[in-house]
Amino acid sequence: MGVAASTTEGLASRIAAEWAHRIEQRLVLPGARLPSVREGAKQQGVSPFTVVAAYDRLQALGLVEARQQRGFFVREPRTARTQAPRSSNPAPYDTLTLMRSLMDSEQGVGPAHGTLPQSFFDPGLVRQALRQVLSTGEAQDALLLRYGLPEGDPLLRELLAQRLADIGIHAHPAQILSTVGATHALDLIAHTLAAPGDAVLVDDPGWPVEYARLVNAGLRLLPVARTAAGPDMNQLAQLAQQHRPKLYVTVSVLHNPTGHSLTLAQAHELLRLTEPSGCLVVEDDTYSAFAPAHQPRLAALDGLKRTLYVSGFSKMLGAGLRVGYVAGPEVLIERLAARKLVQQLCSPPITERAVAQLLQRGGLRRHAERANEKLQTARTRCQKLAEAAGCRFAAPPAGLFGWVDTGVDTERLAQQLSAQAYRIAPERLFSPTRRSGPHMRVNFAASGDARFWRALEHTRNEIQSQSLRTGPE
Amino acid sequence: MGVAASTTEGLASRIAAEWAHRIEQRLVLPGARLPSVREGAKQQGVSPFTVVAAYDRLQALGLVEARQQRGFFVREPRTARTQAPRSSNPAPYDTLTLMRSLMDSEQGVGPAHGTLPQSFFDPGLVRQALRQVLSTGEAQDALLLRYGLPEGDPLLRELLAQRLADIGIHAHPAQILSTVGATHALDLIAHTLAAPGDAVLVDDPGWPVEYARLVNAGLRLLPVARTAAGPDMNQLAQLAQQHRPKLYVTVSVLHNPTGHSLTLAQAHELLRLTEPSGCLVVEDDTYSAFAPAHQPRLAALDGLKRTLYVSGFSKMLGAGLRVGYVAGPEVLIERLAARKLVQQLCSPPITERAVAQLLQRGGLRRHAERANEKLQTARTRCQKLAEAAGCRFAAPPAGLFGWVDTGVDTERLAQQLSAQAYRIAPERLFSPTRRSGPHMRVNFAASGDARFWRALEHTRNEIQSQSLRTGPE
Repeated sequence: MGVAASTTEGLASRIAAEWAHRIEQRLVLPGARLPSVREGAKQQGVSPFTVVAAYDRLQALGLVEARQQRGFFVREPRTARTQAPRSSNPAPYDTLTLMRSLMDSEQGVGPAHGTLPQSFFDPGLVRQALRQVLSTGEAQDALLLRYGLPEGDPLLRELLAQRLADIGIHAHPAQILSTVGATHALDLIAHTLAAPGDAVLVDDPGWPVEYARLVNAGLRLLPVARTAAGPDMNQLAQLAQQHRPKLYVTVSVLHNPTGHSLTLAQAHELLRLTEPSGCLVVEDDTYSAFAPAHQPRLAALDGLKRTLYVSGFSKMLGAGLRVGYVAGPEVLIERLAARKLVQQLCSPPITERAVAQLLQRGGLRRHAERANEKLQTARTRCQKLAEAAGCRFAAPPAGLFGWVDTGVDTERLAQQLSAQAYRIAPERLFSPTRRSGPHMRVNFAASGDARFWRALEHTRNEIQSQSLRTGPE
Repeated sequence: MGVAASTTEGLASRIAAEWAHRIEQRLVLPGARLPSVREGAKQQGVSPFTVVAAYDRLQALGLVEARQQRGFFVREPRTARTQAPRSSNPAPYDTLTLMRSLMDSEQGVGPAHGTLPQSFFDPGLVRQALRQVLSTGEAQDALLLRYGLPEGDPLLRELLAQRLADIGIHAHPAQILSTVGATHALDLIAHTLAAPGDAVLVDDPGWPVEYARLVNAGLRLLPVARTAAGPDMNQLAQLAQQHRPKLYVTVSVLHNPTGHSLTLAQAHELLRLTEPSGCLVVEDDTYSAFAPAHQPRLAALDGLKRTLYVSGFSKMLGAGLRVGYVAGPEVLIERLAARKLVQQLCSPPITERAVAQLLQRGGLRRHAERANEKLQTARTRCQKLAEAAGCRFAAPPAGLFGWVDTGVDTERLAQQLSAQAYRIAPERLFSPTRRSGPHMRVNFAASGDARFWRALEHTRNEIQSQSLRTGPE
C-alpha cells in the first residue's frame, strides 16, 4: 500500500490506505458516510472506477460497509476486527481491482498483461467477417432483427462441433451452448450446476477471476497444488474423497499462470480420481489457440460424459466480439441453456455469425498460425532476457504466459517495481489463499523490454542484499 | 393438450401428453429413463428444442425428474402426486415453452406475437450504424479488440443520460449500466439486489418471463392486481406492510399485457405506499418507445433514489443487437456492475457503440416516429375488427398490446383456435397463479387479419352455445 503509481490499482491502493489510516486513527468515526463515488472521484481527481476499487478494498478489510442505496459507511471497530478474511475464501478485492485494471483501456501493455498486445491481432479480419454478416439480404435482416436461439447460432455450433473434433472431442451441436465470452460459460456453470455451500476444486496457483466467480456464487474453494510436474494427485484424491466436490474447474492445457499442460497420463489419472465422487470436470481451455492440436484434453478422454469443455475467441481474435462456448453432456447443456434463456434470452446473433464465418473460411486458422509464429519469436526473446536477469522458468516456456522464479518475494518486488512504473503479476495474485512467493507471471508477448528486466535484476539484487543485512524476516 | 399443431408449442404439448399417458397407464415404470433429447428428436421427427419443451412440461407435472448428466427418469407416483405446483410459485413450464416459441424463427407472426413484425423494422438503419462502427481507424480497432468497460460504452451511457432527461429522469452516466438487453438488466437486479426467500411484488396480470426469472432466483412472488384502473392500491399497501418485499417489479407505462399506463397520481401513490418498507421499485420501461414522452415515469418522480429504471432497444430496433440498460442510485449500479464484471466482463462494445450512433444522429427517433405512425394505423384496424367480432378492450387501446375481453374462457378458446392454426395469448399465460379468464393479449401490429377475427367470433359463439346447453361448468 502507500506506493503512488499511475495505475488504477496503485491509486486505489493509495486512496484506500489513506481512508484506512483515518478510520484507524478515529479521524472519521463509526457510522460516518464516505463521500459518494462521484464526489470521491472529484475530490481526488481520479476516475470513479478507482474510487470503487478503493472502497472495495476498505470493505474487504472490514473497515466500511455498503448500505443499500445509501453508500459506504465506517463500521464499528469490533465488527471490523472479527471480519478478518478467512483463508479458504479470501476477500475478492484484489481480483476486482485486477479485473478493472484489465479492462482499463488507459492501462499500458507490460509483463503483467493478460492478453496478446494489440499488434498481434488482425482487426481487418474481424471487421471483414462482421461486414459480411452485415451484407444485405433477408437472412441477414433476420440476424439483425430477431431473437437468436438461446443455444446460439446454429451455424456456429455446427462449426464448433467440427473444430472440437479436430482436438479429439466429439460433440453433437446440441451439446454446445454459445455464451458471451468463455467467462460467461464459467459463470453459468458455477451458478447452475452447483449450489451455495458446495465445494469446488481449483488449480493452485490459478486464475483469480475464477476464484472470485466461484466465491461470488457461494462455493467453497478447495485448492489443488499445481506445479510444473502437474496437479498434486495425492491431494486431489484426498480432497475428492473428503469433500465430495461438485466441480473441478481446471485449465488442462497451457495452465494460467504456470504454462503447464497435462500429460496423457495425468489427464487419465485426474479423471479417474474424480470419478467416484461424481465430480463434474470443468475444463477451461481459454488458451487453446496457443496450443498444438495434439495436446490431450480431458473432454476428449472422457468423451464429454462428465466434463464440460469451455473456450472462446477473445484470446486470438480480440476481446470485443465476446463469443465463447461450452460443450458437455446434453442434459447439462440444456440446463445451462434454460438459465441463459431466462437471463438474457440470447447472445447477439451478429457477432456469433461473424465467428462462424471465420471458422468456415479458415481465416481464424491462418491468423492463429501467424500470431503463434510471432509469439514464438517473442517467447525466445523474453526467455533470454529473463535468464540473463538471473530468473528461471518454473515450467518450460510455452503459450502466452511464463511462470518465472525471481528468487525473491514477488509481493515486495511488485511494490518496488511499481515505484519505477513497472507493473508485474506476483505469485500472490494467483494464490487462492493469497500466499506470497518468488514467482511472477510474465506475458511473453509483452515482456520484450530489456529495460524492464534490468530494473527487475537491480531491484531483486537490492532486496536480496537487504535480506542478507537484516537476516530472514 | 393432445391438439396437434405445427408450432413447437403444439408439438411439445402432444409429445408431453403421450408420455404422460404412458406414465399414468404404467406402460413405462418409475425409474425408466426417457430417450435422450437427441434420440427423442430423431424418433419423433421433431427438433431437439421441441423435445426439451416436452420434457420440461413432464418435469413440471412431477412425472419425470432430471438426474444430473444422466437424463430424464420417470418418478415414483407418490412423489409425483405430492409435487403439485404451489399457487404462489407456479412451475415455469409454460414460460419456458413460451420463451422458446418466442425465439423459434419458424414461428409465424400472429395475434400472440411479442414484438413488432419484421416489416415495421428498418434493418438498413441498424446495418448502417454497425457499418459506421466498423470503419477503419485506431479507435474502431480498440472497439473490436479490447475489453469494454463493465459499465458499458461511455458514449452510449452519456447519450442515454440525455435521453433519460427527455422523459424527466435525471441520471449521471455513472448511474447507468449497459446490459445484454433489458432482460439481462432485470436478471442482474433479481440476482444481485434480492436474496433467495425474499418477497417481490409483481403486476398481476404481468409478463410470465419476469415471473420465471424471479422464481428462478428463489424469490417469492406477491401479485398486485392491475386493471384498467391501475394497481390495486389497498392490496399493495397491505402486501408491502405484511411482507416487507425487497423489490416491486412493475411496468409503469404501456403495461404488458393490459396497455395501461400509470397516472401521475397513481405513480405518486405507488411510491408513497412502498416507501416505509424500503422496497426498491424496478420500473420496467421496455415499451418506452411506443409511449409519448410526457407519460410519468416512477423514476422521474422518485429522482432515482430507490427506483431502478430498465429499458432497451429490442422493441424498436429489432432483437439482434441485445442492448439494454438500467439506471438507478449509484451505489446499486456499482453492485450490479461488479456482478456483471464477474459474470461476463463486458457486453460487446460494437453493438453498444452502434446504438450510441443511432441516438446521436437522431436515426432512432425518426424511425420510432415512422413505426409509431404505422402502429397507430394497425391499432385502429385491429380495434375495429375486434369490436366487430364482439370483443371489447379492457383498457383503451395504446402501444403494442391490447387486452381484449372475449367473453369466454380464453384457455378453451386458445385450444380450439390452435386446431385452426391460430395461436392466441390467453389470460392464464399472464397470471402468476395460472388463473384462466376471458382476456387475451393481442399484438396490434400483427392482428389485422380479418379471417382470424371471424374464426375467433365463430369459436367463441360455439363455446357460448355449448355452455348454454350444458350449463355452467
